[in-house]
Amino acid sequence: MKLIRYGEPNREQIGVQLEGKNFDVSALGGDYNEAFFEDNGLARLEEFVKANETTLVEIPEGTRLGSPVARPSKIVCIGLNYKDHAAETNAPIPAEPIIFMKSTTSLVGPNDDIILPKGSVKTDWEVEFGIVITKKASYVSESDAMDYVAGYVLHNDVSEREYQLERGGTWDKGKGCDTFAPVGPFLATKDEIEDINNVRLWLSVNGQLMQDGNTKNLIFNVPYIVSYISQFMTLLPGDIISTGTPAGVGLGFKPPVYLKPGDVVELGADGLGTSRQVVKAYGAH
Amino acid sequence: MKLIRYGEPNREQIGVQLEGKNFDVSALGGDYNEAFFEDNGLARLEEFVKANETTLVEIPEGTRLGSPVARPSKIVCIGLNYKDHAAETNAPIPAEPIIFMKSTTSLVGPNDDIILPKGSVKTDWEVEFGIVITKKASYVSESDAMDYVAGYVLHNDVSEREYQLERGGTWDKGKGCDTFAPVGPFLATKDEIEDINNVRLWLSVNGQLMQDGNTKNLIFNVPYIVSYISQFMTLLPGDIISTGTPAGVGLGFKPPVYLKPGDVVELGADGLGTSRQVVKAYGAH
Repeated sequence: MKLIRYGEPNREQIGVQLEGKNFDVSALGGDYNEAFFEDNGLARLEEFVKANETTLVEIPEGTRLGSPVARPSKIVCIGLNYKDHAAETNAPIPAEPIIFMKSTTSLVGPNDDIILPKGSVKTDWEVEFGIVITKKASYVSESDAMDYVAGYVLHNDVSEREYQLERGGTWDKGKGCDTFAPVGPFLATKDEIEDINNVRLWLSVNGQLMQDGNTKNLIFNVPYIVSYISQFMTLLPGDIISTGTPAGVGLGFKPPVYLKPGDVVELGADGLGTSRQVVKAYGAH
Repeated sequence: MKLIRYGEPNREQIGVQLEGKNFDVSALGGDYNEAFFEDNGLARLEEFVKANETTLVEIPEGTRLGSPVARPSKIVCIGLNYKDHAAETNAPIPAEPIIFMKSTTSLVGPNDDIILPKGSVKTDWEVEFGIVITKKASYVSESDAMDYVAGYVLHNDVSEREYQLERGGTWDKGKGCDTFAPVGPFLATKDEIEDINNVRLWLSVNGQLMQDGNTKNLIFNVPYIVSYISQFMTLLPGDIISTGTPAGVGLGFKPPVYLKPGDVVELGADGLGTSRQVVKAYGAH
C-alpha cells in the first residue's frame, strides 16, 4: 500500500494511492500517527480499502500533500552512511553509525517550499531513504528488526552547513529548521519495495542531476540501523529514521554550491515516488 | 502555580501543588501538553483552582508523580553552559550555545528509577534548571523571550558518557536512553521564581553532595537561550529546554565515578522542589 496525507498544513486528511491516483480514506478515522501504527492501523487500512475499493472518492489532482506520516515523536538520522558522501565531505568512514536528530517541527509535505532560514547562506540538499517504525522498538536484534518497520519514505534531509558545522556543538543545530524535512509523497509499505538493498535515489537542482546513489552502497543497512538505534533510545510507532545521503551534496563541490531563492529541487527513489520543492527566502512566502 | 501530573506511567492525571499538598484538577480536562499551553491553559487552570479551591480533592501521599509536562515535541539541551563544568570536562568555554537533543522517550517522573542501559558502565548525573515553553517561538528576540516561557522544572539530564563521547557522532547517542530525563516534581510558573539568575541547584549521590551550583554562573542565561534556539528551530508549547549543568558530574572526577545499581540520586533547585531516583540495572526493575 501507499499511504498519503492531503489537505492544508496541520489539517491533513488520510488517503491512499492506488495505481497513481490518490483516494480519501478519512472514514477510517484517525491519522497516520503513533496511535494508528500501534493499533494495527496498516492491517485495518488494508481491510478498509478492500471493503470500499469501488466507492473510494478520488482526491482532486493538484491537492497539496502533507507528510505521509503525522508529526512523530522523533526523526532520527544517520550521518555519513555512504562512503562516497563521507569522502566528499572529507570525513572518515564511521566505525559505527553516527546518530543525530531533526526537530520534528521541520517536517513538511513533499512539495512544500523550502524556506531558507533568516540570513542562511549554506542551505544544502540531501536525498535520503527513510524508514517508518510500526511498533515500539527497544534493544531489537538485527534479525528481528524488519518486524518493526512499517515501510519507507523519500526524505530530503535539508541541512544548513554553517549551523551544522561551524556554530559549535552537534549537527542538530543545522538540521531542524522549519521546512527542512520534506517527506513523501507517500509511505510505501514494506511489501512495495522489492529489494531495499537496491534502491536508486537521485536529486536534481534546477534540472541538473546532483545526486545519483543507490542503497546498495549504504555502509550500514536498514535492519542494522533499526537495531543499532534501538540500543540507545526507544523507537515509537510512526518514528522516522533517515538512513543517510549519497555523494553530490552542495558541500561537496569545490567551491561549495548552496540553495538560493528560486531554485527548484527535485528528488526521487525507486518505489518511493518523487518530490519537488521551490526554495524561498524567509519572509518571501 | 505549581503544576503536577500523577498516577501510573502514560496514564497520568493533572493536578496542582498548594502549600506542599497535591490536589487533583482532572475536571479541568486535558493534559499539560502542547494543546493545553497553546489554548491558554495556565490562565484557565488558575481560574479553575480559584473557583474550586475549597473542594479540590487531595491526592494521597505516596502517589507516583509523572513528569509535570506530558511528552513534548522536543527536549532541547544546552551543553557546557557553566564555566566550572566546561573546565572539569576539559572542554573550552563555548563561543555560543551548544545545542543537543534528548529523545522524548527518555522522559520519566521525578522519582522514577534510572535504568542503566544494557552493558552501560558510564552513566552519569547532571542536575539542570529546565524551561517549559508556553507558545510557539520562532525567531524570538532576547527582549521578548520571557513571553514564551511558561515556567521552570527540575531536570536530571542523565547521560551515558561512553555513548555520548566515545561512540562517534553527536552527543544525542548518550542522552536519550529510557529514564534518562527525570523531570519534576512540579512545573513552577514564572511568578514562582523570584530571580531566575540566582537559583541554587544541587545533586547528591548516596547522600554525598556532588553538584552545588547556581544559575548566576550560567554562561548563557534563560532569555538568551530561548531566543538563540528559536533561530534554529521552532519551539512549541510544552517543549522543554534544559539549560546545562554545573560542575560535579561523575565524568569530572579523577578517576571518573559513575552510577551503579542501588545508588540513590537526589537533586533539587530553589523553588523547583526535589527529586530522588534509585539506579537499577536493565532487566532488574
